[in-house]
Amino acid sequence: MTDTLIDAPSFTQKLEASRAASRVLAQATTAQKNAALQAIAAAIMQNESRILPANRIDIANGQQNGLSAGLIDRLRLDERRLAALARAVREIVALPDPIGDVVRGSSLANGLQLTQLRVPFGVVGAIYEARPNVTIDIAVLALKSGNAVVLRGGSAAENTNRVLVEVIQSALFETGLPIEAVQTIDEFGREGATQLMRARGYVDVLIPRGSADLINSVVAESTVPVIETGAGVVHVYLDESADVESAVQIVHNSKVQRPSVCNALETLLVHAASAERLLPPVLARLREAGVTIHADERTRAVFADAVAATEDDWTTEYMSLDIAVAVVDDLDGALDHIRRYSTHHTESIVTNDLARAERFLAEVDSAVVMVNASTRFTDGGEFGFGAEVGISTQKLHARGPMGLAELTSTKWVVRGSGQVRG
Amino acid sequence: MTDTLIDAPSFTQKLEASRAASRVLAQATTAQKNAALQAIAAAIMQNESRILPANRIDIANGQQNGLSAGLIDRLRLDERRLAALARAVREIVALPDPIGDVVRGSSLANGLQLTQLRVPFGVVGAIYEARPNVTIDIAVLALKSGNAVVLRGGSAAENTNRVLVEVIQSALFETGLPIEAVQTIDEFGREGATQLMRARGYVDVLIPRGSADLINSVVAESTVPVIETGAGVVHVYLDESADVESAVQIVHNSKVQRPSVCNALETLLVHAASAERLLPPVLARLREAGVTIHADERTRAVFADAVAATEDDWTTEYMSLDIAVAVVDDLDGALDHIRRYSTHHTESIVTNDLARAERFLAEVDSAVVMVNASTRFTDGGEFGFGAEVGISTQKLHARGPMGLAELTSTKWVVRGSGQVRG
Repeated sequence: MTDTLIDAPSFTQKLEASRAASRVLAQATTAQKNAALQAIAAAIMQNESRILPANRIDIANGQQNGLSAGLIDRLRLDERRLAALARAVREIVALPDPIGDVVRGSSLANGLQLTQLRVPFGVVGAIYEARPNVTIDIAVLALKSGNAVVLRGGSAAENTNRVLVEVIQSALFETGLPIEAVQTIDEFGREGATQLMRARGYVDVLIPRGSADLINSVVAESTVPVIETGAGVVHVYLDESADVESAVQIVHNSKVQRPSVCNALETLLVHAASAERLLPPVLARLREAGVTIHADERTRAVFADAVAATEDDWTTEYMSLDIAVAVVDDLDGALDHIRRYSTHHTESIVTNDLARAERFLAEVDSAVVMVNASTRFTDGGEFGFGAEVGISTQKLHARGPMGLAELTSTKWVVRGSGQVRG
Repeated sequence: MTDTLIDAPSFTQKLEASRAASRVLAQATTAQKNAALQAIAAAIMQNESRILPANRIDIANGQQNGLSAGLIDRLRLDERRLAALARAVREIVALPDPIGDVVRGSSLANGLQLTQLRVPFGVVGAIYEARPNVTIDIAVLALKSGNAVVLRGGSAAENTNRVLVEVIQSALFETGLPIEAVQTIDEFGREGATQLMRARGYVDVLIPRGSADLINSVVAESTVPVIETGAGVVHVYLDESADVESAVQIVHNSKVQRPSVCNALETLLVHAASAERLLPPVLARLREAGVTIHADERTRAVFADAVAATEDDWTTEYMSLDIAVAVVDDLDGALDHIRRYSTHHTESIVTNDLARAERFLAEVDSAVVMVNASTRFTDGGEFGFGAEVGISTQKLHARGPMGLAELTSTKWVVRGSGQVRG
């Protein structure tokens, strides 16, 4: 817990301010919200000289504290990433405002008119690890969808996040929206995170984004409704009929393009009849890229440059240049393996067989199921959402990348003329 | 805990059987599911001579244990209510199957085709109190939406529920669907309910339906995602411009038609300028119906036949022939009162003023907001859902009456031709 000034607002005062701000945001027009987002995008670019030095302090601290290369990568901001963040904010400006959308409606026989409207959640809480881009993504998606947001970022990014929240608040102030619409509770430390999980009545939904440990502890402790995100033991299955070239490209891209994120490939499954044809070129390409291969016996029979996989490898989200590889008897074997070990994030089949593609799509019970595509496409930006709050791996409320619509609730409006129930 | 036979399935075996049944249900055709529902409707009518005697035992036990009149009413089945249940099942047969519906879709610039499909949750858990109709409603809505369901009913209805689940299972067997698609865990007592709340990986969503105490304990203990239902401190606000006759009818119907349920009116608010005009006829009609009036001072100034309200009255869900009444200065006073005391279930304004109606509808943050209609219409059956799983008072996933669509999740299907991320 850091020292706080005597007149700094208390935790409860901050949440009350969030609630009050959420009422203003809920009634804000699309034009007002878009003006705030434009101001945020501009402020990100204008404050590069404040943001990047703060980020360099976090990076240096992280390196000193022995953070892994993957975590340092996720923590790092640079000019290019800041520009990409500002661009993502502008993309969200261009997206339609979900608030007020009529989801369903009907006129009942008794003359009542029902309309189900999309409304903001109110106050969204986010608990996440050291990824400063998440601060911007969640804040901006929350604002555009009419919500106030309370952020608890990882302490490894605290300098970066403090500056980013200040930058966002200055843009809110400039455009006349309440600055309390985006607040951090980082100054309350771990105790603040715990209190946030118990803040029923103040916070309408809590989104943990990060490691499986973080998510599990939020799920266990929170009395606020939670949307789980993230953990991805992601599978690619190479069917008997797969093209070698497609298999090589999709596996390489899924594993290597950004190994530190949740949609990166972790376990490769191959049909036994094609192991000899597919595995040597697919795995050789991974070895060239520096990937360590943790393989079962049948894999090592056709590709020797691998370490023996243990049971743990099938359940591990490496987030690094490691991959687990297993040969399966057939599609049923692949489905069984996935059913047993998948975290229900993303699974992809590489095949030319229509019936098998359809069976895989129908029977794999994951947030995103793919045929002949890299698992790296499970991403709000790639899906056209501008950015994402996270990737939900639960089935309640939202599943897969969460954009604007996923940050909304609904409200039934009933218009009558004196009807009573008989 | 009741004695179990040596070869009775364990709790975990039952949940594994639910999971296996859910896989069959997820792939079942609409015709198969409708055939099962028709068989259930027929079986309810054919087994009246088994169901009603079991219910009479529960009623007798309840009366001996001093259950309130409201709870006994909710527990009671008779020929008319059984027929209504069977009719509700047939109404659900007639509703469209939500599974496979395309929610959204798009083609990306890189040629990927995205489709968001509606899929079942998988296994739905329900923990509820002594309302046997809930057993039928939840089981049938779950089946039609492709889910398996695990039921934990209140012990006060255990005889009725045991027979109802047997009746449902016989209908499932007859139509070739797995009988484990509908199971009760009542034989495991309270410990079973606790285990159900911790059954992550086995149960995809848990729906508590009943008292505020029940719901709060499920929210606090559950690690399975929860949809909160029920508690309703429901308000009607009589605006300055309200017609006397509309006010009398809507208040009477909202309070008296079935006081033991969550959409019944609990607190009446009246604009000060119309208190003298509206309260005497409105409250006189309630008194005729045997309603006890808990009123603030300004109300008692114009209607003497009332007891003095205490702070507790504003937060109480009576579920009985009691009502709290307050005079407010104006619409803002009503909105403040509602913001402070509402459980965000249903609120209705009686008015002839368009601007005030729209403001009430926009600013009251409840699952259902009404103008000139009885609060008793917040009901899945009335909304055209055939029945309801409960009325969600949270903002996550579902809000208001929950029917078929509210028992589904979604899945993203991505079809590519070898795309990788650049």
